Amino acid sequence: MLLAGGTGVVTQELLKDALKYGKCFVRNGNTANYIPELQRVNKYQLGICAVGFDGDLPEVVEVGDSRVPFTIQSISKIISLILAVRDRGPDYLFHDKVGVEPTGDPFNSIVKLETKSRPFNPFINAGAIAVASCINGTSADEKFDRFLELTRKLCNNKEISLNESVYQSEKETGDRNRALAYYLKASGVLEGDVEECLDLYFRMCSVSVTALDIANLSAVLANQGKCPFSKEMLIEPHSAKAIRALMLTCGMYDGSGEFAMSVGFPAKSGVGGGIAVPLVGRMGIGVFGPSLDEKGNSIGGIKMLEFLSEKLDYQLF
Amino acid sequence: MLLAGGTGVVTQELLKDALKYGKCFVRNGNTANYIPELQRVNKYQLGICAVGFDGDLPEVVEVGDSRVPFTIQSISKIISLILAVRDRGPDYLFHDKVGVEPTGDPFNSIVKLETKSRPFNPFINAGAIAVASCINGTSADEKFDRFLELTRKLCNNKEISLNESVYQSEKETGDRNRALAYYLKASGVLEGDVEECLDLYFRMCSVSVTALDIANLSAVLANQGKCPFSKEMLIEPHSAKAIRALMLTCGMYDGSGEFAMSVGFPAKSGVGGGIAVPLVGRMGIGVFGPSLDEKGNSIGGIKMLEFLSEKLDYQLF
Amino acid sequence: MLLAGGTGVVTQELLKDALKYGKCFVRNGNTANYIPELQRVNKYQLGICAVGFDGDLPEVVEVGDSRVPFTIQSISKIISLILAVRDRGPDYLFHDKVGVEPTGDPFNSIVKLETKSRPFNPFINAGAIAVASCINGTSADEKFDRFLELTRKLCNNKEISLNESVYQSEKETGDRNRALAYYLKASGVLEGDVEECLDLYFRMCSVSVTALDIANLSAVLANQGKCPFSKEMLIEPHSAKAIRALMLTCGMYDGSGEFAMSVGFPAKSGVGGGIAVPLVGRMGIGVFGPSLDEKGNSIGGIKMLEFLSEKLDYQLF
Amino acid sequence: MLLAGGTGVVTQELLKDALKYGKCFVRNGNTANYIPELQRVNKYQLGICAVGFDGDLPEVVEVGDSRVPFTIQSISKIISLILAVRDRGPDYLFHDKVGVEPTGDPFNSIVKLETKSRPFNPFINAGAIAVASCINGTSADEKFDRFLELTRKLCNNKEISLNESVYQSEKETGDRNRALAYYLKASGVLEGDVEECLDLYFRMCSVSVTALDIANLSAVLANQGKCPFSKEMLIEPHSAKAIRALMLTCGMYDGSGEFAMSVGFPAKSGVGGGIAVPLVGRMGIGVFGPSLDEKGNSIGGIKMLEFLSEKLDYQLF
Repeated sequence: MLLAGGTGVVTQELLKDALKYGKCFVRNGNTANYIPELQRVNKYQLGICAVGFDGDLPEVVEVGDSRVPFTIQSISKIISLILAVRDRGPDYLFHDKVGVEPTGDPFNSIVKLETKSRPFNPFINAGAIAVASCINGTSADEKFDRFLELTRKLCNNKEISLNESVYQSEKETGDRNRALAYYLKASGVLEGDVEECLDLYFRMCSVSVTALDIANLSAVLANQGKCPFSKEMLIEPHSAKAIRALMLTCGMYDGSGEFAMSVGFPAKSGVGGGIAVPLVGRMGIGVFGPSLDEKGNSIGGIKMLEFLSEKLDYQLF
Repeated sequence: MLLAGGTGVVTQELLKDALKYGKCFVRNGNTANYIPELQRVNKYQLGICAVGFDGDLPEVVEVGDSRVPFTIQSISKIISLILAVRDRGPDYLFHDKVGVEPTGDPFNSIVKLETKSRPFNPFINAGAIAVASCINGTSADEKFDRFLELTRKLCNNKEISLNESVYQSEKETGDRNRALAYYLKASGVLEGDVEECLDLYFRMCSVSVTALDIANLSAVLANQGKCPFSKEMLIEPHSAKAIRALMLTCGMYDGSGEFAMSVGFPAKSGVGGGIAVPLVGRMGIGVFGPSLDEKGNSIGGIKMLEFLSEKLDYQLF
Repeated sequence: MLLAGGTGVVTQELLKDALKYGKCFVRNGNTANYIPELQRVNKYQLGICAVGFDGDLPEVVEVGDSRVPFTIQSISKIISLILAVRDRGPDYLFHDKVGVEPTGDPFNSIVKLETKSRPFNPFINAGAIAVASCINGTSADEKFDRFLELTRKLCNNKEISLNESVYQSEKETGDRNRALAYYLKASGVLEGDVEECLDLYFRMCSVSVTALDIANLSAVLANQGKCPFSKEMLIEPHSAKAIRALMLTCGMYDGSGEFAMSVGFPAKSGVGGGIAVPLVGRMGIGVFGPSLDEKGNSIGGIKMLEFLSEKLDYQLF
Repeated sequence: MLLAGGTGVVTQELLKDALKYGKCFVRNGNTANYIPELQRVNKYQLGICAVGFDGDLPEVVEVGDSRVPFTIQSISKIISLILAVRDRGPDYLFHDKVGVEPTGDPFNSIVKLETKSRPFNPFINAGAIAVASCINGTSADEKFDRFLELTRKLCNNKEISLNESVYQSEKETGDRNRALAYYLKASGVLEGDVEECLDLYFRMCSVSVTALDIANLSAVLANQGKCPFSKEMLIEPHSAKAIRALMLTCGMYDGSGEFAMSVGFPAKSGVGGGIAVPLVGRMGIGVFGPSLDEKGNSIGGIKMLEFLSEKLDYQLF
């Protein structure tokens, strides 16, 4: 089975080689350790999936643990941002609520909020919490239902659901995020009830997905917002473009610059081990590898993407 | 009526002159504006009281609005510290929970917590919240009752009670303090339940006192912990000494250095307009003046103390 | 005259429209004001030039003030980086001397050096000064001669030379940069003599170029390091790729995220009003517009590039 | 020989006991290691001297290495401040050039200068450099001569002179101070030529003194500015008071709060191992002990002062 890109071709052989290469680095990292549900995941798992849409029919290539469920974590920040931009408009959201600049600080840092109340970008925790407070809905349940419905469509998988025990753990241990949220509330950035907003935030982070799901989500982003399977427009093209730009400059936490240099793809990672990679006009890639480097990015995932970037000779910039 | 100090004598005439001098500066400041109960206080009020204990009988001299009730606010940080040191011991408290260094940052700053999880000192909000979490008691009610009982003894006034509407307002608008508390919880500094700790903190800040009450409290601190009226030992002498030192270096927020230079007395202010001033071996002074400078200290109060420091020729150092 | 891009075509008409659009915004900004030579430049100037190399012969299209000389300023950071990577190797340079992460802080900020001695990236001043100290040569003169020679080749213009009076002014007013340099020296990052390094740095910033020159430089970067005119390899392809990645994440100071979202091209600006834009495999663009926004980027230049990005429908990511 | 204090008496026996106590802690620290001249000092040295002036004749009590020369280092910040206040007046100096607040940051920190250009206080390096730039004189030599002349008078020792090799080492390794100075120049705080100011600063730090000299200096500060030997007024009383206040809140670097609590005396330390302690109306104390704690204060010196504070029952506040 083949997947044709502009200058490169993603075959199962190629993904197998990438997987083999990525596996060499997995032992250098560790699973996230702040909740037991993440810590006890087998760190040697690794999988990758690509969804191409060059021809009429989208093509799917996948190897390794591409169907193993994991929690979406920070990749959910993409989906909540799509909703909030739709609900409030990009001008309001990016002017009043959150910036679009990379920060150089870790994802859960609070220091910059003291000099500049608006969080730097929607992909650090403070920014994502501010964004979550801008999602319309009369209750946390209604807001989360909207999130879940959109996630299922973007991932082309109606079975996607909450991992209840991760959600409970996130909620119990989320005091650093609570601090960020109350700080944002005190500065007038966070709208509405803080605990409701945090509840939504923790739920969104705890949704269970696979590398295949994430590849589908990435394919929609890469296809200007249109699902390559259903042909439904799921994201406004302008939002899709903005999100790809944000992924490039801020998607890999404070390792984004390094990743832009070594790989050069827009990407968003999560501490569950996932990485979403939209290659505009070509394909979406989904990665799962729960062994993380010190910045919280999948070690094996980054190495597979480095391998592909080299082999595909696919140069964005 | 006279009040003899070592080199100076505090008479009602002297306090009247101080009051007259202090009044000139009141219009340059404003009442605290973060809750309506504080904002609507008449900023032109000013009062001062001194309780001396040189001879057998303590003497009280007072002028101006020395019997007008106001909320104790940050002056309560002294009393909660006395309790926590008693409950946990100074070694544990000052080693594990809170430092004793001035910070140079505003009282509600969060930045230093990111590099050094233990708050710098017990008189900034983060430090006082950490201290509050170390007060023994099976419930917030029991902890607050212990605080209130000690406060009444220190102030020699059994009528002291909570200002319920200030407490409710503090609680409703306390999101910045909530952020500090959850940050401390995430760092393992704050013990127990965060909301219970905050509830206690807000209640302690909302107790209603007068300048006379604060002068009594200060007199106990200045008298090595012994109440000059009841002769009861209310503070361990070592604690009293430590607190006077902390008042000197950290008691006036990020204006402590300036105050040490212009006045040179240990002091602790609150945004309700109070200032407590213990002059060791001599007297305790209590001030009320709700017009605040930009650092949150009573403008008229500082000026009255400058006047007294000059006139008394009473030089600590 | 035409210049064919992959999906778009840059004609003189298109550049004229871009120029017309960009001119509308020029009055909202100001020239750099830290030295008189920059401040007195006519801020209403605006020009743009594109050098394409799709076919055998490179094509040049230009409008407006594309031949007006201005000082290269921070765009020189690209050229000094090419030299230093060549002299020391990318592994040493990017591991020991300078990072590759965007910072969120202004270009002349010193705060992050206190917690992390290595500057965040080579395009903030601290990073560029560290890079300058890694250029080989037995004297500042020899190092600058190497820089000038490479600049002339990259710009395809043998006449390029130093603007002596800007250099003198930079040197006289460069105390903030001196502070950065001595801080780096104290941390062991800056090699060799500080004043010699700064002298080189100030000279490199003061070289006089035009938008045409910058378009040529950009074309070399976009053409994998090969000059489209002379066909000479001037930059190692790996360096060219790394530099394009850095331009995308860090090239527009702390406005890089916004620029990635609104324009989406790799770019490096200078406070002289220049912007270099390499579009890989397509063309190089050079911009001149000395009216700057508050972040130090050419206001008219950014608007022209926004216009082109929209019209060319040329989407990197 | 006796030295009578208000409530306590300093005898040679008492100082011997203090010395014995202090010696127990010396091995826990280390000499300053940034220049070889300081590093190779025998860290086991310890000495203390007290100069009392209660009666007509000043009394001197001393034990241990009280006549061993060491470099004055940061204690010189007191003397340069006296000169600058005299030359410019306290209002200008403390309003425009330097604050009077403790900072919570290490003595050589640069971070706070980025948000608040004026250094926090005259006893951190940035503040002392700003102060040095305010000393009158037509050349660095003339300024230093004025400093040396005042130092000799304050220390009651005409032999005091520069340690040339320490000065050369300070100058060679002073890049962090150079960074501070150029930063202050760029912000408009530092007046005149930066290198001349630094040269003066390094020379002032490199003057050679003994514990006896420092005790004399402290006695002048404690005696409202009048030399107890010559009866000459050397410091304006207002300056002496301001300096004692600054010593109390900022004199022991970022260990000032701890020292106020455990000892409670105004004090200024230097990394050469000296500590100056003025006890107002009583005596001046000089300490020498080159073994430093991690904050840069003499370990043995602090312990001797703790001992004295306890034994003398001499309570400032």
